[in-house]
Amino acid sequence: MPLSRDEIAKQARRLAKRYRIDEGKRFRLARCDPADTAGLEDEVREDAKQLLGRGVERLAALQEKLYAQDHWGVLLIFQAMDAAGKDSAIKHVMSGVNPQGCSVTSFKQPSSEELDHDYMWRTTRALPARGMIGIFNRSYYEEVLVVRVHPELLERQHLPKRCIDDDVFEHRYEDIVRFERYLDRNGIVVRKFFLNLSKAEQRRRFLARIDAPEKNWKFSIADVHEREHWDAYQKAYERAIRATATPHAPWYVVPADNKWFTRLVVAAAIVDTLESLEVDFPVLDPARRREFAAARKVLTAGKAPRRS
Amino acid sequence: MPLSRDEIAKQARRLAKRYRIDEGKRFRLARCDPADTAGLEDEVREDAKQLLGRGVERLAALQEKLYAQDHWGVLLIFQAMDAAGKDSAIKHVMSGVNPQGCSVTSFKQPSSEELDHDYMWRTTRALPARGMIGIFNRSYYEEVLVVRVHPELLERQHLPKRCIDDDVFEHRYEDIVRFERYLDRNGIVVRKFFLNLSKAEQRRRFLARIDAPEKNWKFSIADVHEREHWDAYQKAYERAIRATATPHAPWYVVPADNKWFTRLVVAAAIVDTLESLEVDFPVLDPARRREFAAARKVLTAGKAPRRS
Repeated sequence: MPLSRDEIAKQARRLAKRYRIDEGKRFRLARCDPADTAGLEDEVREDAKQLLGRGVERLAALQEKLYAQDHWGVLLIFQAMDAAGKDSAIKHVMSGVNPQGCSVTSFKQPSSEELDHDYMWRTTRALPARGMIGIFNRSYYEEVLVVRVHPELLERQHLPKRCIDDDVFEHRYEDIVRFERYLDRNGIVVRKFFLNLSKAEQRRRFLARIDAPEKNWKFSIADVHEREHWDAYQKAYERAIRATATPHAPWYVVPADNKWFTRLVVAAAIVDTLESLEVDFPVLDPARRREFAAARKVLTAGKAPRRS
Repeated sequence: MPLSRDEIAKQARRLAKRYRIDEGKRFRLARCDPADTAGLEDEVREDAKQLLGRGVERLAALQEKLYAQDHWGVLLIFQAMDAAGKDSAIKHVMSGVNPQGCSVTSFKQPSSEELDHDYMWRTTRALPARGMIGIFNRSYYEEVLVVRVHPELLERQHLPKRCIDDDVFEHRYEDIVRFERYLDRNGIVVRKFFLNLSKAEQRRRFLARIDAPEKNWKFSIADVHEREHWDAYQKAYERAIRATATPHAPWYVVPADNKWFTRLVVAAAIVDTLESLEVDFPVLDPARRREFAAARKVLTAGKAPRRS
């Protein structure tokens, strides 16, 4: 039996709530199980698949209204360790959506032009407009993740000496929170996803990339080197989430050891976010309605021209 | 007798300090005389001209070091009523500077693409890179000036209803202060200039634009309509300066009834700012010095090739 719209909204709300962090202070990453599936067993994977499919349909319908209404922009940020499934989650969840209303920007190593600017410059340029869903595949959070794990990267940012002190990362957390608060005040809704992968599952996926020819292109030796910094990264993620999870820009810490479940939670969180905005097609005011009536008259008057 | 470099720095410091607002709380615009000339009488205008000329030379020299050092970016924001002399101040003060190290962006009425984004998006895109002086002819401050005087403009910003409440301008002040703090933390130095014109002098200049054929192009009937909101604008400027003048992003309230004096103060404030950054050509470390020595060897070895 297909799920009703209310049922999808309810399920989405339940799943989204389970992994949403609104208040970071007491957050502990070690308490989050990357293999968690919210009690959904392997037997119900078919149901989960149906839920994902229906969720994606609902998402596409909501996005159309978001676009028509042109009030809210939605920024979805994805962060994770390598092979956690960022790309595949984006692909599977967003593929049903009209690309005219959705843009994905991947942030790799900053260019020299980007390094010559303040660190949020390159991401701000790519912020979604109203009516749009903008997806950041990595983001300004790299500035408190990879840069925190490899502080020598700060050197490459050309900062004046005065700007590099012991508080540099605390200041970055603070500035990021304030920036996201500013976006919220201006109708750009921010939601952040950390795909929480276990170290063992990353190893398994790396090996698959080495062994399966069609996955070879995804593999890079550098990823294996980064793996040596696993604990430092976990710590950096925990600190970042503790400092920047707020009610106006929450983090979702999504279990990432099972891809089918990751996609389900990401879809649920996005559906739940869009439902909460109460987007709808704009309603005509009386003046516009009169204009429409007049336009109909003009159009129908020419419908059957008399031939003399 | 030409002024020494120390003398220029001293004079610049004196003038800059007189009009600099680091702490807005007690600021009153009514106490600032648009016709003030800091005791410099008409008789000493020749000296003032020399000081301006030497100040502009010094500015050009400092800017070259700023560019070579590539650590600091400098953002200069100009705001004023119409005919206060923003364009002419920018022209006279910055003309000696290498245009490769300086860019001017004028912000007029926002385009529909710009209105579809958060209000700081369009200005952030134009922020100066390190080594550069970026000049904003108008800026995000328009959002708390013209929009405050004409709140109906808020409607055009497509904001969700939730985002338009009684605190909208207070929130904008707060977000602007935080944004400028973020820039300061990241090596982008912010200085803001309000060219303080009197209503009587504006009238005189508008009449000149009507009467002098070579000034006709500057005149617009809309400017005269805006003049009707003079008091509301003065209030909006005062409020904005009170809320956003901070030690890390001060305002200069520059008397604007005498153009020669406006230019002098603007030049002084910029020279004083650059002097405070202690910019200088980068010094080579020993490793680079060895590289340089090796390069010299290669270059001089080929100097007089033997003909066999």
